[in-house]
Amino acid sequence: MTLPEISTPALVVDKPAFDHNVATMSARRPGAALRPHVKAFKSTDLAQLLADAGHLDFCCATVREMEGMALAGLGHDLLLANEVVDPVRLRRLGTLAETGTARVTVAVDSEETVRAAAAAGIKEVLIDVYVGLPRCGCPPDDAPRLADLARTLGMHVRGVMGYEGHLVHVADRDERTARVATDVAPLAVAHAAVGGDVISGAGTGTFDVNTVVTEVQAGSYTLMDGEYGELSDLPFRPALRVVTTVISVNRAGGWAVLDGGIKALGMDQGNPICAVGDVLYCSDEHTVVCPPPDAPLAVGERVALAPRHIDPTVAKHPLMIVIDATGAVVDEWRVDLRGWRIDDERHR
Amino acid sequence: MTLPEISTPALVVDKPAFDHNVATMSARRPGAALRPHVKAFKSTDLAQLLADAGHLDFCCATVREMEGMALAGLGHDLLLANEVVDPVRLRRLGTLAETGTARVTVAVDSEETVRAAAAAGIKEVLIDVYVGLPRCGCPPDDAPRLADLARTLGMHVRGVMGYEGHLVHVADRDERTARVATDVAPLAVAHAAVGGDVISGAGTGTFDVNTVVTEVQAGSYTLMDGEYGELSDLPFRPALRVVTTVISVNRAGGWAVLDGGIKALGMDQGNPICAVGDVLYCSDEHTVVCPPPDAPLAVGERVALAPRHIDPTVAKHPLMIVIDATGAVVDEWRVDLRGWRIDDERHR
Repeated sequence: MTLPEISTPALVVDKPAFDHNVATMSARRPGAALRPHVKAFKSTDLAQLLADAGHLDFCCATVREMEGMALAGLGHDLLLANEVVDPVRLRRLGTLAETGTARVTVAVDSEETVRAAAAAGIKEVLIDVYVGLPRCGCPPDDAPRLADLARTLGMHVRGVMGYEGHLVHVADRDERTARVATDVAPLAVAHAAVGGDVISGAGTGTFDVNTVVTEVQAGSYTLMDGEYGELSDLPFRPALRVVTTVISVNRAGGWAVLDGGIKALGMDQGNPICAVGDVLYCSDEHTVVCPPPDAPLAVGERVALAPRHIDPTVAKHPLMIVIDATGAVVDEWRVDLRGWRIDDERHR
Repeated sequence: MTLPEISTPALVVDKPAFDHNVATMSARRPGAALRPHVKAFKSTDLAQLLADAGHLDFCCATVREMEGMALAGLGHDLLLANEVVDPVRLRRLGTLAETGTARVTVAVDSEETVRAAAAAGIKEVLIDVYVGLPRCGCPPDDAPRLADLARTLGMHVRGVMGYEGHLVHVADRDERTARVATDVAPLAVAHAAVGGDVISGAGTGTFDVNTVVTEVQAGSYTLMDGEYGELSDLPFRPALRVVTTVISVNRAGGWAVLDGGIKALGMDQGNPICAVGDVLYCSDEHTVVCPPPDAPLAVGERVALAPRHIDPTVAKHPLMIVIDATGAVVDEWRVDLRGWRIDDERHR
């Protein structure tokens, strides 16, 4: 990546790498075979490019993302791939559907979530099934009961979903393939019992080894995590960096200080990756790196950091700066789907 | 903390605990003996309450925080306690000073940062001195040379600063006191050589054991970190929680899923603390907890999480909800100083 001359810290997208990722995925999972996951990038500007590539259906992790997508005209078919019991927020989704602003489907995995959806006027659901990740999802054999309850309450059951998040980072492709086959098998069984057209699931790490799903819920493939970079069989390229500036150098100590830290980087998977020095640690607004003695850094130099986990990294920035292969800025994409309050815009 | 009936995840401030913290600190470090650090809370609404308590001088970690404070009428005496070489951003600070919008002082620790400040029309600086934290700060014996350079370039040197961030979490008070005395001693020596009225430094963990500084740069004391909670001698109370809702329960597995995760919590110091279950892990929008078998959680219940590190936690939210002892919402404080681009507001 050729670094742009911009104020730092800044989230920078390598457009050629992004374009490669989008084209590669679209060739393998065209159109509705992919339901891009908005949580990875939280940007309607980026989502529009995926729609332009033929993917009109999206999934979201928050009501905020759902509503933002709908209001941006990207509401062709929106799935809230998460459980929600908040009646006010669910009702807003119900209204989006009733007004024709969006097709709205929500995931449910319990009597409580089914009843909350029905009470809010939600008309379409997927039964969320546990496939081994200790998080949401009903026991597979409970799916038919929840589907029946949903139908009794007047809702259309479009099918099932299940997310094998515990397997998306398994480094060895053969092991990943085998474990996905085993763990996702109950999703097919649940689908046979529930019915419907949709089996939704998988992620960037399992997009081509999960043979059960009718649609893949991948989002990270667009920009790529540092973590996913360790899956050498994936055909996607790293497209996102946090570009920083060296603001201080301690020659005796052998370290340099960059002007981006914890508040600019997702830290849950550990320190970012830096090509020009070992990362010593990150603090709120700083990353301290130790360059090799024969390649010191100077105050004012630009340094790119590769975040380990893009989703929370993107969520810390209001904007992505898009550059071409020469480092020239060619676009800006707003990160406009952050936060959770429907009325967050009012406070900005 | 009595949990409020609000949409989740939400950043919630316990006002009685906050008031206790502010009053306790103001009694020990009244007025200008405290320079509250805005980076901890990024909110001009909260800062105004500190000004009301007599603290009119503030320090900031970003130009964005500086400009936001100035434009909110809180520009009595603003210190950028961080190095910046960006000419555009520095020039904006110079303009704030020239227009009388704020008194502006910036930290410098190198020839480059001194020259960048002078070129941008900055009129006042502190020499930032290394006191043991591997980050910014010049070698103590280089401080007089940088001060001379600053004066030669027409700037007023108000004194020195140095931050013993490597010691603020030392659990044992006696050890903390002894190590601060040793490591901060060079700051006093540098000050004697540099001159000026100001010796700025310390933090919440060392606010009453650092006897060198004339002003304490503490911010976390207002809301208190989970990490600082392990310093039993500190007289401050935890005042910040991320309130979540249980959205899924797996009875066979023994876990419950909360609707706040990595995107709502600072994760650099590890998982949040939960009183009603052990935290298994956090993902983007979820925290999975294992409650004791005899005290299970139910879908719809509210659960409070105590973040380990408040600064990056606050920076993930647009708003703090302020509650009284009964859990009633009594105020909302905007987190209006997030991001780095001066023109971020344009993109929101």
